[in-house]
Amino acid sequence: MPKVTFIPQNKEVKVEAGTDLLKAADMAGLYIEGDCAGRGTCGKCKVKIAEGEKSKPNKAEEKHLSEKEIDAGWVLACQHKMEKDLVVEIPIQKDAHLRKTSLKGGVEHLSAEPLVEKVHVKMERPAVEDQTADLERLLRHLEKPDLSVELRELSQFPALLRSNSFAVTVAITGNRIISIEPGDTTNQIFGVAFDIGTTTIAGSLIDLKKAEVLAVAAITNPQNAYGADVISRITHASESRENLQQLQDKVIEAANSIIKDLLKQTKVARDRIYEVTAVGNTTMSHLFMGVDPTYLAPAPFVPAYSRALEVEASALGLNINPAGRVIFLPNIAGYVGSDTVGVILATDMDKRTENCAAIDIGTNGELVLAANGRLMACSTAAGPAFEGAQIKHGMRAASGAIELVNYEDGEIKLSMIDDAPACGICGSGLIDSIAALVNAGLIESSGRFVNPEDNPEKVPEQFKDRLRKGTNGYEFVLVAAEDSDTGEDIVLSQGDVRELQLAKGAIYAGLMILLKEAGISKDDLDQILLAGAFGNYVRKESALTIGLLPQLPPEKIIAVGNAAGDGARMALASKSVRDRAKALPEKVEHLELSTRMDFQDIFVDAMSFTKV
Amino acid sequence: MPKVTFIPQNKEVKVEAGTDLLKAADMAGLYIEGDCAGRGTCGKCKVKIAEGEKSKPNKAEEKHLSEKEIDAGWVLACQHKMEKDLVVEIPIQKDAHLRKTSLKGGVEHLSAEPLVEKVHVKMERPAVEDQTADLERLLRHLEKPDLSVELRELSQFPALLRSNSFAVTVAITGNRIISIEPGDTTNQIFGVAFDIGTTTIAGSLIDLKKAEVLAVAAITNPQNAYGADVISRITHASESRENLQQLQDKVIEAANSIIKDLLKQTKVARDRIYEVTAVGNTTMSHLFMGVDPTYLAPAPFVPAYSRALEVEASALGLNINPAGRVIFLPNIAGYVGSDTVGVILATDMDKRTENCAAIDIGTNGELVLAANGRLMACSTAAGPAFEGAQIKHGMRAASGAIELVNYEDGEIKLSMIDDAPACGICGSGLIDSIAALVNAGLIESSGRFVNPEDNPEKVPEQFKDRLRKGTNGYEFVLVAAEDSDTGEDIVLSQGDVRELQLAKGAIYAGLMILLKEAGISKDDLDQILLAGAFGNYVRKESALTIGLLPQLPPEKIIAVGNAAGDGARMALASKSVRDRAKALPEKVEHLELSTRMDFQDIFVDAMSFTKV
Repeated sequence: MPKVTFIPQNKEVKVEAGTDLLKAADMAGLYIEGDCAGRGTCGKCKVKIAEGEKSKPNKAEEKHLSEKEIDAGWVLACQHKMEKDLVVEIPIQKDAHLRKTSLKGGVEHLSAEPLVEKVHVKMERPAVEDQTADLERLLRHLEKPDLSVELRELSQFPALLRSNSFAVTVAITGNRIISIEPGDTTNQIFGVAFDIGTTTIAGSLIDLKKAEVLAVAAITNPQNAYGADVISRITHASESRENLQQLQDKVIEAANSIIKDLLKQTKVARDRIYEVTAVGNTTMSHLFMGVDPTYLAPAPFVPAYSRALEVEASALGLNINPAGRVIFLPNIAGYVGSDTVGVILATDMDKRTENCAAIDIGTNGELVLAANGRLMACSTAAGPAFEGAQIKHGMRAASGAIELVNYEDGEIKLSMIDDAPACGICGSGLIDSIAALVNAGLIESSGRFVNPEDNPEKVPEQFKDRLRKGTNGYEFVLVAAEDSDTGEDIVLSQGDVRELQLAKGAIYAGLMILLKEAGISKDDLDQILLAGAFGNYVRKESALTIGLLPQLPPEKIIAVGNAAGDGARMALASKSVRDRAKALPEKVEHLELSTRMDFQDIFVDAMSFTKV
Repeated sequence: MPKVTFIPQNKEVKVEAGTDLLKAADMAGLYIEGDCAGRGTCGKCKVKIAEGEKSKPNKAEEKHLSEKEIDAGWVLACQHKMEKDLVVEIPIQKDAHLRKTSLKGGVEHLSAEPLVEKVHVKMERPAVEDQTADLERLLRHLEKPDLSVELRELSQFPALLRSNSFAVTVAITGNRIISIEPGDTTNQIFGVAFDIGTTTIAGSLIDLKKAEVLAVAAITNPQNAYGADVISRITHASESRENLQQLQDKVIEAANSIIKDLLKQTKVARDRIYEVTAVGNTTMSHLFMGVDPTYLAPAPFVPAYSRALEVEASALGLNINPAGRVIFLPNIAGYVGSDTVGVILATDMDKRTENCAAIDIGTNGELVLAANGRLMACSTAAGPAFEGAQIKHGMRAASGAIELVNYEDGEIKLSMIDDAPACGICGSGLIDSIAALVNAGLIESSGRFVNPEDNPEKVPEQFKDRLRKGTNGYEFVLVAAEDSDTGEDIVLSQGDVRELQLAKGAIYAGLMILLKEAGISKDDLDQILLAGAFGNYVRKESALTIGLLPQLPPEKIIAVGNAAGDGARMALASKSVRDRAKALPEKVEHLELSTRMDFQDIFVDAMSFTKV
């Protein structure tokens, strides 16, 4: 069997001849960026053959790789089949996940309200005159004779008692002793809040005695190997129980690697983590819990459950105290998940009296409106354009991504994350680029590039070389090959503009439908909250320029950070927030947009680049 | 590695050279009778080398095997080490376990009160106008919005619903849905009641809708391989976690093989068993639950717990519905277990107003006294004599065991179980034999055989040949070699009589202490109940002759069958019986005899063979 060595990780794996490099990397526990689950259509899984014989490029590779790249040894991992031993270099995007994580947010104003109660007990020893069983002796001291106890903890309890002079600490959840620990550990109560994104999984370790975030960590969701979008993953899961199990295993492994990282950062012991909360879209929730998501995909988009699911950590194989509780917050509908519940919690949407909209733009766009005492939500299939997927040179918000674009003094000015040489365009950069080109008059309100042949007068001299014919319509060169990190031109294509138009039109139309249902107009809105990493980085001016948001005074548009993750933290720290979360599926009215003719009408209008 | 083939089972196993045959049989999944856990002291693990070379008999074999046996190829399995390939015959005792099992008992007067409730639900299908999640749709129909659901059941619920036209049956325990089943299964609610004996494990499959016993099955407790008595097993378990796990695995495997048998007999589906109750002594309870029993052995004999433990079947690996509940009834003290709780339930001792004693004789003797509104219990280390262990030709109550012995018309008359040729003496036969020899004047009240040399006149002519010098004092030949199944004389030895004296003295003394504590005399007893298989088979006259029981009119002595097992069945069938059981540890006063001087005094007196 041929062997492949991946660098710089230096991981080796032997595979059957004919295995593609994407699969091989997965077998080696490595993740290669990509959006199309190995179908060869996204062109993102570029890797470089560092040693060994490379096969002839196939059609997919010819389409997605430049000649220069092919000559330099680049291949598409999903297309290149292993025949002989290889050394393969995986280009590493400097990890941008920390954009999604911060020590701040979610718990500042909460008083610590852990689910777990800890009591230190010192007992007298048994004697012939007092043969009370160990457990009953403990319960007598706790003055709680009706507590039940985890069998796992009871198993070695007699020896634990005797080797600790009959002094132990018990951790109690509800009416159950979930942990018996030597000595006094009453100050050690920890929990982890997860934000399970389709693309990125983030976790925060919280000291539940102090309501304080101690550490954060994030990684790419390894389910990515089965497709960047939820539909691909639902399709995969629905094919067999094994596939469903596979997707669950992936996300649980990822969660465990985050826990490992958090424990390493803080030196907290794994068994002192008793609680986990998680938020994510409804598909992520189903896959995390190992529940068949099949019927989320076709209309009428029915989830298996909407309530919060609570299970023992051991049932999921999550590496915290095995009797710890894992709570996935409830979802509202098939495409309005607990991530939206998190946004509502973090922004107090369920308590507001003014008219307020919250928009969380991820792979899907979820919208919530609080108006006239009602709380309404809907989702729009925005597609992954805002996360850089389906965009020719799109990428996640990692080092070298074009993130800011200005049209100033007749020039297009760019800046990249980390000021690194450009290697692609992230979501905020995409909106900025298009807004800049709209402002420069190079993109018409219909979304078409100005045709330089028909209307040469519309193209200023300085852009004449940069607006050129692409494979499918015109394209604009943002960064020339000689200045880019990839050695090729980084362009914004007509297709990219179309993707953005669809995405922003869907979100705008969704908002309009919510307003319509509430019987108010956009001018009645007191605030628009932008949630998510994207919301933090998108420039309001650009969003207004392209008509993603309705024209409101900029001070009414507020970025609220990773509100979904903040909601998970709040629910972890506080029982009352958790109770608020559990009540939300009943409180929030869900609007299904897919079958509404009025949505389609507004959507079509909303695609144009006019200020609205 | 040499190979051994066991016949008649025809099981083969390859073992390291030097492995003894007892171990090899265990590896082959077979059980060879024996009481001393392979120490070579009981002489019970006789097997015959049918093919292959047998090693020279060692000292243990010379002690326990006759020359004739050695010549015929018999060895002690625990002593014979494998060097070359062998074919080994394991003598099979025709299984006598069914003595412990009966379709009757325990549930006749109970109304069916299953823990599990089943509801058949037929739902309307989801639509865009009603996108309610599957689980919430179900709960809406049940009108129980607060039920939680087993994650395992939720996992495939969406497909189950759709492939069954949205008609399913749910099984509910407490506030939890533990099973979701296709179609209408409301009539299928089953449970298994276990009686986990140190020697024998018995199980009964019960239809919980009808409170009807459908089938019974029993097997030898395979923990026997680690010693016949609880102390050997505690010692083994206390040596390492692995050993404890090993003992738990053995009993769970045995329980699973009983379940398999019960399902085979009845064609009931495994997933339709939702409840299990179990009784057993405190050590068996600990080992079944995998809880460290170490501190049961030394004074002050403290159990890890006394309450009833309830766990999910999946946590134990018991092959019923994985979410089924397993309840091990509570124990009262280190040596008064839930088997005694079962006896109390089955005999209504906790409700009686008259003075009544119950005696359950197994490996230990447990005694319960109801008197003056009090309920008291104690245990006595009777030893396993009544189960045929530690008795030279002792055996379990299997085919060929001498079970009835009479001294009539100057003759000793015997009968064997199944009228088979004699191969040993079971517990009831032991008491009968000794009573007969006491009646014949061959055993003195001190327990010594009459010395035929000093007092030849005391030995009737017909017994002169049969009362002879043995290896350790005199012995009486019950069955001569030519009439026995084993080809050797079956004798009652002086040592056997001593064993019985210790056992019966302990039980009698325990009863006296209970009466003393209650402030009544034996004449105040309205009834003595004899529980257990032994109680069913022992003859009252013999028990009175040897002074095992106090002299009471025989009609006051009542055999109540396998009351412990009946109690387990009752607790399975009825919630109110279960509640009674749970309350017993608080109600029953436990007397610790081991440290009482008054017990020692009575014990010494009680060893003599005088009617008391």
